[in-house]
Amino acid sequence: MPPQPSQLILLIFNSDFSNSCLFSILQQNKGPGVACDFELHVNSLVGCRQSVQFQSSEFNMPSEKSEKAMSPKITGELLRQLRQAMKNCKYFSEPIQAYIIPSGDAHQSEYIAPCDCRREFISGFDGSAGTAIVTEQHAAMWTDGRYFLQANQQMDNNWTLMKMGLKETPSQEDWLISVLPENSKVGVDPWIIAADQWKNMFKALSSAGHSLVAVQDNLIDAVWPDRPERPSTQLRSLGLDFTGISWQDKITTLRAKMSERKITWFVATALDEIAWLFNLRGADIEYNPVFFAYTIVGMNTIRFFVDLKRLSDPAMREHLQLDSPSKPELSIQTFPYESVYTELQAICAALGPKDKVWICDKASCALTQVIPKTHRSPIPYTPLCLGKAVKNATEIQGMKMAHIKDAVALCELFAWLEKEIPNGNVTEISAADKAEELRSQQKDFVGLSFPTISSVGPHGAIIHYRPLPETNRTLTVNEVYLIDSGAQYVDGTTDVTRTMHFGTPSAFEKECFTYVLKGHIAVSAAIFPNGTKGHLLDSFARSALWESGLDYLHGTGHGVGCFLNVHEGPCGISYKTFADEPLEAGMIVSDEPGYYEDGSFGIRLENVVLVVPAKPKYNYRNRGSLTFEPLTLVPIQVKMMNTELLTQKERDWVNEYHRKCREVVGAELERQGRQEALEWLIRETQLII
Amino acid sequence: MPPQPSQLILLIFNSDFSNSCLFSILQQNKGPGVACDFELHVNSLVGCRQSVQFQSSEFNMPSEKSEKAMSPKITGELLRQLRQAMKNCKYFSEPIQAYIIPSGDAHQSEYIAPCDCRREFISGFDGSAGTAIVTEQHAAMWTDGRYFLQANQQMDNNWTLMKMGLKETPSQEDWLISVLPENSKVGVDPWIIAADQWKNMFKALSSAGHSLVAVQDNLIDAVWPDRPERPSTQLRSLGLDFTGISWQDKITTLRAKMSERKITWFVATALDEIAWLFNLRGADIEYNPVFFAYTIVGMNTIRFFVDLKRLSDPAMREHLQLDSPSKPELSIQTFPYESVYTELQAICAALGPKDKVWICDKASCALTQVIPKTHRSPIPYTPLCLGKAVKNATEIQGMKMAHIKDAVALCELFAWLEKEIPNGNVTEISAADKAEELRSQQKDFVGLSFPTISSVGPHGAIIHYRPLPETNRTLTVNEVYLIDSGAQYVDGTTDVTRTMHFGTPSAFEKECFTYVLKGHIAVSAAIFPNGTKGHLLDSFARSALWESGLDYLHGTGHGVGCFLNVHEGPCGISYKTFADEPLEAGMIVSDEPGYYEDGSFGIRLENVVLVVPAKPKYNYRNRGSLTFEPLTLVPIQVKMMNTELLTQKERDWVNEYHRKCREVVGAELERQGRQEALEWLIRETQLII
Repeated sequence: MPPQPSQLILLIFNSDFSNSCLFSILQQNKGPGVACDFELHVNSLVGCRQSVQFQSSEFNMPSEKSEKAMSPKITGELLRQLRQAMKNCKYFSEPIQAYIIPSGDAHQSEYIAPCDCRREFISGFDGSAGTAIVTEQHAAMWTDGRYFLQANQQMDNNWTLMKMGLKETPSQEDWLISVLPENSKVGVDPWIIAADQWKNMFKALSSAGHSLVAVQDNLIDAVWPDRPERPSTQLRSLGLDFTGISWQDKITTLRAKMSERKITWFVATALDEIAWLFNLRGADIEYNPVFFAYTIVGMNTIRFFVDLKRLSDPAMREHLQLDSPSKPELSIQTFPYESVYTELQAICAALGPKDKVWICDKASCALTQVIPKTHRSPIPYTPLCLGKAVKNATEIQGMKMAHIKDAVALCELFAWLEKEIPNGNVTEISAADKAEELRSQQKDFVGLSFPTISSVGPHGAIIHYRPLPETNRTLTVNEVYLIDSGAQYVDGTTDVTRTMHFGTPSAFEKECFTYVLKGHIAVSAAIFPNGTKGHLLDSFARSALWESGLDYLHGTGHGVGCFLNVHEGPCGISYKTFADEPLEAGMIVSDEPGYYEDGSFGIRLENVVLVVPAKPKYNYRNRGSLTFEPLTLVPIQVKMMNTELLTQKERDWVNEYHRKCREVVGAELERQGRQEALEWLIRETQLII
Repeated sequence: MPPQPSQLILLIFNSDFSNSCLFSILQQNKGPGVACDFELHVNSLVGCRQSVQFQSSEFNMPSEKSEKAMSPKITGELLRQLRQAMKNCKYFSEPIQAYIIPSGDAHQSEYIAPCDCRREFISGFDGSAGTAIVTEQHAAMWTDGRYFLQANQQMDNNWTLMKMGLKETPSQEDWLISVLPENSKVGVDPWIIAADQWKNMFKALSSAGHSLVAVQDNLIDAVWPDRPERPSTQLRSLGLDFTGISWQDKITTLRAKMSERKITWFVATALDEIAWLFNLRGADIEYNPVFFAYTIVGMNTIRFFVDLKRLSDPAMREHLQLDSPSKPELSIQTFPYESVYTELQAICAALGPKDKVWICDKASCALTQVIPKTHRSPIPYTPLCLGKAVKNATEIQGMKMAHIKDAVALCELFAWLEKEIPNGNVTEISAADKAEELRSQQKDFVGLSFPTISSVGPHGAIIHYRPLPETNRTLTVNEVYLIDSGAQYVDGTTDVTRTMHFGTPSAFEKECFTYVLKGHIAVSAAIFPNGTKGHLLDSFARSALWESGLDYLHGTGHGVGCFLNVHEGPCGISYKTFADEPLEAGMIVSDEPGYYEDGSFGIRLENVVLVVPAKPKYNYRNRGSLTFEPLTLVPIQVKMMNTELLTQKERDWVNEYHRKCREVVGAELERQGRQEALEWLIRETQLII
């Protein structure tokens, strides 16, 4: 799955919509902690199907997710109630003139639970990115080019769409300043705004004479009578056979890092970090095996904030040693999820003059501001984030097993597609369903790791396309098929993209596929010094495309969790120069260059790869070298290659990769008795010359 | 010439000095406006010649420049006087407890004039980088690994050397906090500390209860009776035949950019930007054809601050239209250099509520703070910096001519070396002198663009080596010779490195040379989309070295001025992810990968290259593509190549490059009647297969 887009700041498109072209990307913001990346979702779908609906001067791109109603939500009454709440002295001493509703949850998660979809509730707009601001007179929604169309369809006339990326669109700050009366108060729920975002908004408003105020009660919740409960799914504890390191040892390592930096307390707010730390998994958020919790670790205490009902199971109490801790400093004190604020306040009230508290600078403003500035030590990546990124031997073994099982399912899928497509009854949706069904037959399958991107022909050019009943297209022998999919297994997380043709690809499709393959190999086979950051490898993936004047507008790779989030920080491979951490042996990232021909086809080749030591001829300054080992073992379609464009070294790479697929996955297919898939695998892994 | 190092933050070396190796470079700071880069100067010189002098636990590297005395300066009396000044109420209402003496001048120049060498004056240490801090009890000097040895030799016992990059070395802030009594005042001359540095120091001291105060009178100047005068060399005006654009048109373009961003005033402080803006050159700073000045441009006024004596020449007055401006808004008001502060104050006092003033965030704290915060609009790169970086057709033509003349001189040099070296009477210094002599015979020669790096054998591994009488080594047919040199001509600036062997190179030397060549070609021949930043190309230069476990610890390229500074911003090619500006057609950078084998030899291959449009097969999203055209046209020694390691494409590149050298430089050699050099050129540009 390609890295998630971060904010677009300024895109200038020409006025001819059907021929819209990117003139310049003037500036981009840094992504969140996840090594994610800016992407353009090109409107090939709209370009072919729906362009008649739009003004030619508009730039619209389809959303990646539009399961819900496309008719606008009627929001007049809701907005009236919200505006009343904005004046209600129950919530504050003085009324506020504007209320900001960000997208996120209190943990700055990439995916969020239904109870946190407040911006969607108030506006109707359910895209993954967007910020709503409601004033006494106005209601405005900022979102990026992927969602212009969808937001327009889902929001009623009460709302003004603010098209981020267009030159004429004001920033939220500038817009607020232009519409607010003097000395206005702007409110926001401090739990769902990150500390760094708060800081920027605070500065901008202050310099214009307004103030930003933290409204403790969420005003959307106040007008949302049937708001869903916060999920509290059953927790699953993972033994050492899956995690390799006990949570006790993880705590000890964390404390060693704290003491090295003279830090006395650490506040963990990211859900995947907490899940990793305690070797626990949940299912509170779709696709992400995490659960709502906070943790505060001191040098002698561990405070764990979670719905206490989840800890009643004896096995769980045993796992966390709640009743008989092995050592006093490893005794976990449990608290209700909601009490993190007051507990952190109590801790901070008792801080000594030299005590320092670590908190990620992406944590919520609410928790961050509890810590007095002189004691606050904000960090871009927590030690848990870094520790989680470097997989241990057990995790690596688990990831390998998960990828073998995943490859079994995909070999079966492709064998099935090859047989079924000519009958004309396979669609994007049924292919995705088949992939899920086949995966679910594999041991320790838990669920998908993200919504399957199953796309044929022009849909392949929409990078985050997800088939919907109204867009569902039939697979044929005439169009390129791209499937980007992955699963959660108890032993690991997968994410793989293959691009196939079940008839005869055109020379241009083969040419582009081969450039993408060359880029994929250039990264996968690269040897580079220990300590190299991922962004220094990004151009290797593009070089062959660039030479022919082609490119793709997304990053090349993202970190992948081990039975955790499919997108994780702090490493990645991208042209973005966010402060990614250096690659080191044991890290796992994706390698997924692509090429997208608007209105025609999309190509992406994605393997998950493991960073491993390399042993080249020399060893300059004893730094050591690294390279990648593919974990994904699914054949790359030879029919799509123009082998004349490959160098001998590249052909050798393909042959060696296919040899390994045949050997490792072949053995498992045989063991599972999946004969048709095995035959397909053998056919697809013939030597190329 | 390789990019200049910026700050080292943390280097950990092992304890075996003679075998010292770099374990990790944990963090680096951003460089200044120039697209410059971190570098390690490896201690091969010390390793071979002087290691007996040092503790094995120390890490020392030789300096790039050590012309002055290596015996320590006696500073007891000077420090006494300085400490007296620190208590003298003539300078401030309350005494200060510490005084910071940075290296720079008021324009944050890379090279500085003798009158600005205050840190050298007070300490004796004359390296290019270092900050001194004097308290009532202590005198401490922070410098990086290149200068540990030299600083130790040049400073007496009054001084403590603070070895930057070593784990145990405190930062200036931390050290100050550890030694100062409570509520101390720390003074600094606000003219020679950049605004961003001031901000950081201010914050750190404030949070520890101290204060940072701007001391208007420089306290070093107060104790420096025979301080040299500020240079005021004769100015040279350049006509349109050299600049391509009149200063009037440059002002108009600048104002258009100001008005686009709603900026009413622009303060220019960088010397090369002011020289470029007015099409003037000076010789105030060695190697850099600049002069001391400031400029403040409003929408209708131009204020020029310079030693007024320099404007008395009628031709100069005519050039600047001082007596009869063509339009009132192009009338230049001249002021003495020193009055910039009071004039800027007067301007700021009259600002309207919406007026905004542009100033580079690297400008001096003194000038920056004159501008009230609400009116200040700091920018990382000024429009002059960007305008200067993109050369116009006239400048490109001039740069091409300068490089042809430069190549003529180098062909002569190499022909001469080939003949003379076997006689055993050519040294590093005499070779450098010969290069200068030959260059000086070329039309419009002005001087060198930086001190020639003429290095043989192990000296080649010292990246910024400069031969001194006490290190001067004789060139032989047994060692690799590296010469990195360049000149200022009125039509352009050059910078070229060639690595040659005048006998028979070893297989390892050839192997390394070939990897460096492959990297050089990979950058030079790269095709990449318009808008690509230079750092995305850096890994291309390293890929072949990395594959064999080798690397070099400096950036790959820096911007080059046109009869201006040999290092200029804002573009470059480096693994550093400072915010370099995207490459565009007309920019000129160096391409100079290298390999340095400590104690044995150094290899670097440097061409200055011009960014030009490329026309690959496709044109994705109409972005257009770019590539490089070499301006440097000096043969690359075939004898040093292991041609078997080159691909056919790389051999073609070498042949085509040599064909062009022969055609273009050959014609000029012929025109100048330099027969021996012509014969050498023809011999050195034979086809390789």
